[in-house]
Amino acid sequence: MALIVQKYGGTSVGSVERIQCVAEKIAGFRDQGHDVVVVVSAMSGETNRLVALAKAIAPQPDAREYDVLLSTGEQVTIALLAMALKQRGYPARSFTGSQVRILTDSAHNKARIKDIDRQNMDDALSAGQVVVVAGFQGVDENGSITTLGRGGSDTTAVALAAALDADECQIYTDVDGVYTTDPRVVPEARRLDRITFEEMLEMASLGSKVLQIRAVEFAGKYNVPLRVLSSFEEGGGTLISYEEEGMEQALISGIAFNRDEAKLTVLGVPDHPGVASQILGPIGEANIEVDMIIQNVAADGNTDFTFTIHRNDYEKARAVLERVADELGAREVVGDNKIVKISLVGVGMRSHAGIAGQMFELLAREGINIRMISTSEIKVSVVVDEKYLELGVRALHSGFALEQAIEITD
Amino acid sequence: MALIVQKYGGTSVGSVERIQCVAEKIAGFRDQGHDVVVVVSAMSGETNRLVALAKAIAPQPDAREYDVLLSTGEQVTIALLAMALKQRGYPARSFTGSQVRILTDSAHNKARIKDIDRQNMDDALSAGQVVVVAGFQGVDENGSITTLGRGGSDTTAVALAAALDADECQIYTDVDGVYTTDPRVVPEARRLDRITFEEMLEMASLGSKVLQIRAVEFAGKYNVPLRVLSSFEEGGGTLISYEEEGMEQALISGIAFNRDEAKLTVLGVPDHPGVASQILGPIGEANIEVDMIIQNVAADGNTDFTFTIHRNDYEKARAVLERVADELGAREVVGDNKIVKISLVGVGMRSHAGIAGQMFELLAREGINIRMISTSEIKVSVVVDEKYLELGVRALHSGFALEQAIEITD
Repeated sequence: MALIVQKYGGTSVGSVERIQCVAEKIAGFRDQGHDVVVVVSAMSGETNRLVALAKAIAPQPDAREYDVLLSTGEQVTIALLAMALKQRGYPARSFTGSQVRILTDSAHNKARIKDIDRQNMDDALSAGQVVVVAGFQGVDENGSITTLGRGGSDTTAVALAAALDADECQIYTDVDGVYTTDPRVVPEARRLDRITFEEMLEMASLGSKVLQIRAVEFAGKYNVPLRVLSSFEEGGGTLISYEEEGMEQALISGIAFNRDEAKLTVLGVPDHPGVASQILGPIGEANIEVDMIIQNVAADGNTDFTFTIHRNDYEKARAVLERVADELGAREVVGDNKIVKISLVGVGMRSHAGIAGQMFELLAREGINIRMISTSEIKVSVVVDEKYLELGVRALHSGFALEQAIEITD
Repeated sequence: MALIVQKYGGTSVGSVERIQCVAEKIAGFRDQGHDVVVVVSAMSGETNRLVALAKAIAPQPDAREYDVLLSTGEQVTIALLAMALKQRGYPARSFTGSQVRILTDSAHNKARIKDIDRQNMDDALSAGQVVVVAGFQGVDENGSITTLGRGGSDTTAVALAAALDADECQIYTDVDGVYTTDPRVVPEARRLDRITFEEMLEMASLGSKVLQIRAVEFAGKYNVPLRVLSSFEEGGGTLISYEEEGMEQALISGIAFNRDEAKLTVLGVPDHPGVASQILGPIGEANIEVDMIIQNVAADGNTDFTFTIHRNDYEKARAVLERVADELGAREVVGDNKIVKISLVGVGMRSHAGIAGQMFELLAREGINIRMISTSEIKVSVVVDEKYLELGVRALHSGFALEQAIEITD
């Protein structure tokens, strides 16, 4: 008997039939004696419909009213799911963000949760009810409806799990877990039974869009075990938790990659303090997000400064940089918008030297030239030419034998 | 400078374009310096869509969750209308029933308003904002969303007008006012500039479905001047208020009629106390609503007892009555399900004898046989054969010269 928080996304509740399936699934958990709190998104398509209405009314819809509008999407789902549960004889009670009282700040459309009142949910659970909560929404101190930003239902689920001290937070989605890499690139990619929060953060930010990164951060911060599973298939999914002592840990958990990268380098930058911010300041002001940043040691009082950005920002960033380079007295700006980033992620790397070397060798064996390298404690990223993406990912996946599950030794 | 409460129904806000028109209209009132509180319904079609979803989930959807679901319809409209106003530079703020705090009892799907907190609306009005309120919904003491029953937005508007002590409550709809009778039957039917609450109640309950009867009762009780006008055409509509002293009053305000009536008579009922309830008790228990009830003076210790009902209930009521008649030792049950009711309504009748006689004469002149007569202070109703409906209504309309506006004398 555990307290489980479950989150079902838009496709999982995308039709009356699917809502009935979700109700069946929840009923199964109740039959096993578990207490269940369910967080749901708007039915797929509904949020887009509402957004289209708003845009038809005003090109820049008022932020407060936009939240009043969008929050109805989840409200429809909680009502329907609670009805479906009661129809099956399972007591249930729906809650809007305001009815739970998920208190947020007043940053409409991208509010942050400040506090969750667990009293109403506790009362309902004590009364034997399934608690059905609208994801993605809250209420500010003035009683105005807020939303956490699109896709924020994952965050709601994790926050509720933390507030209720739940045993597990299960995120039901249209994939059945986290994979060693994208199965569309490597058919042998294997679903991971577990992964650590740190690894998941590196995987998520690198493009494995299974979970919202904010939700993973939140789960890590409050140590809420998080499980990703499929709404449509049976299976244990992937458990995301902290590394456990004594657990056999894979060296590498997975290979993430970003397709649409571009890199820009300012050559011959005078090596004095403040140069980096003089370059990146104007880039930030132009609302361009920077990913990797690399500056090698200086030679002859000059250095080269390189960073990567999304490919769509390439021309804009280049124009900013030409101007900055002039001001700095730098020699030249060069760039390439046909690159990709491939990253090895794994907490096992911490205690094992040689992973990076092995990675570079595997790539070299395929004739893949590495343009940039960046490392963190649990990640090694390389930038290579776009054409090598699939080849590189496959070479690493098989080179590190990621298709084989590690044996758990007690 | 006045405080006006306006209500726009589903067709008036049925599309983005119509919401823009409503925003324009409100902007005009603001430009004239008026404070405006707006109550809106769900966009036409939206409530039906939500009801269909609920029915697809459960044949008898849970009442509490049904309200959670249906209340989203109006919530969408308040957000869109507030956006449209702000887009035009008119400050506005949307309120759900819960945010206003329209406190109701907990009778889901047909809740009654218990109290309205005017503080939040007052604050918004003081800040120069148009207050945009979701009609048809409230919140009970447990914080659960309630709805007032379908079409209840009129009631919301009147209740807000009463709570705010508004100068006028304007109901915008798809007709431009209250007519002397149905223009589809009498093309010469004339729009009334004003009508009293009592007359409107008699007209509404008799089938002129312009306004919800509960809203009219409410307006009368709290003396809120109520105006019915068209969302789509210019014009002053019809003002519904109390009779004013010294005002020239038409004898007859209008002619109402009910098409789908049936009548049942128990003949030869022993005339002793309690007979009426012995007959009507079982009819009420069978959930059959009774309209007119007539019992004439007894002769030879026996009397005849007649009442009218909706035609759909005729067979059911007749079966109940056969059983009751046996128990009472009554002679016979006879009935007719091809009748209609025609009513003259007017507060002027109070002080003028002879209206009823004139009515009967006008009908007789057309060869229309009167089957039943019933009168109240401001109404005379007759039951006639179905085939005479149009003929009778036209004869009365022209006989009382209702197509001519009365002259106001100072």
